[in-house]
Amino acid sequence: MKIAVLGVGLIGGSIGLAARRRLGAEVAGFDPDSATLERAVELGALDRAAESIAEAAAESEVVFCAGPVGELPSLVVSALHASADGVVSDVGSTKLALVGGLPGDVDTSRFIGGHPLAGAETSGVENARAELLDGARWYLTPVERSSGVHYDRLQRTVAELGARPQAIDAETHDRVMATVSHVPHVLANVLVSEAAAALSEESERLPEVGTSFRDTTRVAGANPRIWGDIFASNSEAVAAGIDAVAGRLAAAAELIRAGDADAVGEWHHRAGDDRRRLLESELAGGDLRELRVSVENRPGTVAEVALALGRAQVNIEDMALYPAPDMRTGAISIWIAGGEEAERAAGVVRGLEHVVAVVGGGEQ
Amino acid sequence: MKIAVLGVGLIGGSIGLAARRRLGAEVAGFDPDSATLERAVELGALDRAAESIAEAAAESEVVFCAGPVGELPSLVVSALHASADGVVSDVGSTKLALVGGLPGDVDTSRFIGGHPLAGAETSGVENARAELLDGARWYLTPVERSSGVHYDRLQRTVAELGARPQAIDAETHDRVMATVSHVPHVLANVLVSEAAAALSEESERLPEVGTSFRDTTRVAGANPRIWGDIFASNSEAVAAGIDAVAGRLAAAAELIRAGDADAVGEWHHRAGDDRRRLLESELAGGDLRELRVSVENRPGTVAEVALALGRAQVNIEDMALYPAPDMRTGAISIWIAGGEEAERAAGVVRGLEHVVAVVGGGEQ
Repeated sequence: MKIAVLGVGLIGGSIGLAARRRLGAEVAGFDPDSATLERAVELGALDRAAESIAEAAAESEVVFCAGPVGELPSLVVSALHASADGVVSDVGSTKLALVGGLPGDVDTSRFIGGHPLAGAETSGVENARAELLDGARWYLTPVERSSGVHYDRLQRTVAELGARPQAIDAETHDRVMATVSHVPHVLANVLVSEAAAALSEESERLPEVGTSFRDTTRVAGANPRIWGDIFASNSEAVAAGIDAVAGRLAAAAELIRAGDADAVGEWHHRAGDDRRRLLESELAGGDLRELRVSVENRPGTVAEVALALGRAQVNIEDMALYPAPDMRTGAISIWIAGGEEAERAAGVVRGLEHVVAVVGGGEQ
Repeated sequence: MKIAVLGVGLIGGSIGLAARRRLGAEVAGFDPDSATLERAVELGALDRAAESIAEAAAESEVVFCAGPVGELPSLVVSALHASADGVVSDVGSTKLALVGGLPGDVDTSRFIGGHPLAGAETSGVENARAELLDGARWYLTPVERSSGVHYDRLQRTVAELGARPQAIDAETHDRVMATVSHVPHVLANVLVSEAAAALSEESERLPEVGTSFRDTTRVAGANPRIWGDIFASNSEAVAAGIDAVAGRLAAAAELIRAGDADAVGEWHHRAGDDRRRLLESELAGGDLRELRVSVENRPGTVAEVALALGRAQVNIEDMALYPAPDMRTGAISIWIAGGEEAERAAGVVRGLEHVVAVVGGGEQ
C-alpha cells in the first residue's frame, strides 16, 4: 500500500510511523521545510522524501494533508490534482470551512475531511510516534458527493493505524469542538485578561492566585499560531458558543445578585453533576472519584504517592498538584475510576501517613 | 496565652493545633456539633471543649470565629459580648458583608476580619494540621475604628501561627477574591452547563471532551453549601466580575467573527503572557516552564517520572496528567521554576526514554 503524508509535523510524522510499522505501507512525504522533511526520513516516519506535493501524492492510495489549517485548502486541491484515484484527507482541527470551501472544478468526491483527537501535548516531527494514534477518536466528515469506495478505504486505513474512525457531519463536528475545546480556550484567555487588568488596578501587588484560577486558565494563550487559524476557520461556531456562554453568565450574575443562597447552591450543584456526567462518559471504569491528598511539596513526595499507587496496581485517571503558597506543603488531587478502587487507593496513600479525603473539593 | 476557636473544622482545628504547638497557647474551643468538638480535643486541636461560645471566648486574648460564612455575623457579635478585652477575628472567604454589617451597639473596635488562604484541598477537623497555615497569606481587614493594640496582637498571633499576615481593605479583598477565585468558579459552572446542554442536543453521544475542557471546568460545582454562602456574601463583586468577563467575551466574539487570524493570534498571545506574569509572581524561583512528557498511562509511570525528578532534586511546582482516549497513552505536564532547571528536568525524563518537550502546549 502506498500512502502520502503532506506536512510532516507531529501528526503527519506519527501517521507515517504507524503506516510503515502497522500497515507495512510505503510512505512518501513532502514538507515545505526541507530540514523537517529530512529529519522525518531519518526518524523512520517516511520511506522517502518527495520533491513536491505532486510527486508524493501521484501514486498514493491514501493522501493525508497534515499542514497548518490555513494551508489545507490549497494542499487538498493540489493532492486531488496529483493523484488519479487516491483518497485525500486531512487532519485539521476544524472541518466545515475546508469541506464546504473546496472549488467546484476539482473532483472532490475523493476528498473526505478528517480530524484525529491526538497530539495535544507536543508538536514537531521529533515528538512523532506511532502510539500517538492508538485508540484516538478520528472524526471523518463524508458528504453526499463522497465516493463510498474511497470513504471505505480511508476509514479502514485509519482503523489500521490504531485509531477509532467515526463519521460525523462537518457542521456538528465544528460545533462540538467549539463547545468542548475552542470556547474553553477563549474563556481561559478572557479570564486571564480580566485578572491582569483587575489586579493591576489594585494599589498593592497581590501575588496569590487561587488553584481555581490556575486550572481554569491553564490553556490560556496556548500556541498562538495554531489558534489564530482554528478560531478563524471555526469563527461562526466559536462566536455562537461564546454568545451562549455570555448569556449563561448574565443569568448567573442575576442569580448571584438576587442573593438567594439556596438557589445559587442548587445551580452550583447542578454544574458539579453535569461535569461528572460529561467526564464519566469519557473515562472508563465507572464513577470518577477524587482523592485529595495533603502532602509536603518537596522533591520525591509526588513520586512516593504515585509509586505506592503503582505498586498497588491503581491506575490514575487524572492528577493535579496544588502547591501551597509557602511551596513547602500542598495537595495532590488524584482521580480514580470506581468508588471501590478510590477507597483502596485512599487506603494505600494513608499507609504513607498522608492525610487523604475522598471529596468534592474546591477552594474557598 | 489563651486562644479561643469557635467552629472546629479544617481551619479552626488547624489554628488550634498550631496555637498549642507553636505558641504554647491554651486553646478553648466550641462547636455546635458536639461530636466534632470531642474529636477536636482527641486530635489535640483543643485543650478543652467549652460548653458555649461565651465560655470559650470569655478569658481569651484572641478569638477566631471559624464557622460557615453565613453564621459569622452572629458568632462575632457573641464573641465580642463574651470577651472583655480579646481581639475577635474570623476566617471567612469574604469580608465586606461581615466587616461592614456588624450592628452598632457592640464594640467593634476589637473585631478585625481575617481570611487565611489555606484549606482548599480538604475539610473537617480530621484533616486539620498545624502545617496548613505554614507560609499561607492571611489577609486582615482593619478599619478606621479598629483598635491598634488589638490589631497588633492579632497580626503577631497570625505570624506566630506560621502564616504571613497582610492588611487589606475589605472591599479590595472581596474584589480580588472575586477575580482570582469566585468568578473562575462561576465560569467553570457556566461552561459545564453550556456543554451539557449543547452536547445533549447532538444526535449522537460524543464522549470525548478535551483536556482544555477538563482543566477549565475542574472546580465546577465544588462544595455547593460553602459556595452558596460565598456567592451570596460577595454578590456585588462577583456579579461585577462576571459582567466584566461577559464584556470581554463579547469583544472576543466580535474579534473572532471579524476573522482576522493575526489579530486573534495576537490577542491569544497576550493572554499567554498575562498568565505567565500572574503565575510567576505567585511561584518562587524564576520563570515557570512547562515540560510536556508523552507517557504510557499505566500504573507506575507517573511514579517513575516523579521519582526520577525527585532523585535529581528537581522540585515540581505544578503537574497535570492528560490521559489519551485509549487510557493507554497520555501526557504529563510538569511545571518547573527556572529555565535551566526545566532543561535539567527534561534531560532526566529523557533518560527514562520518554519524549519530552519544553513548550507552550495546548490542545488543537
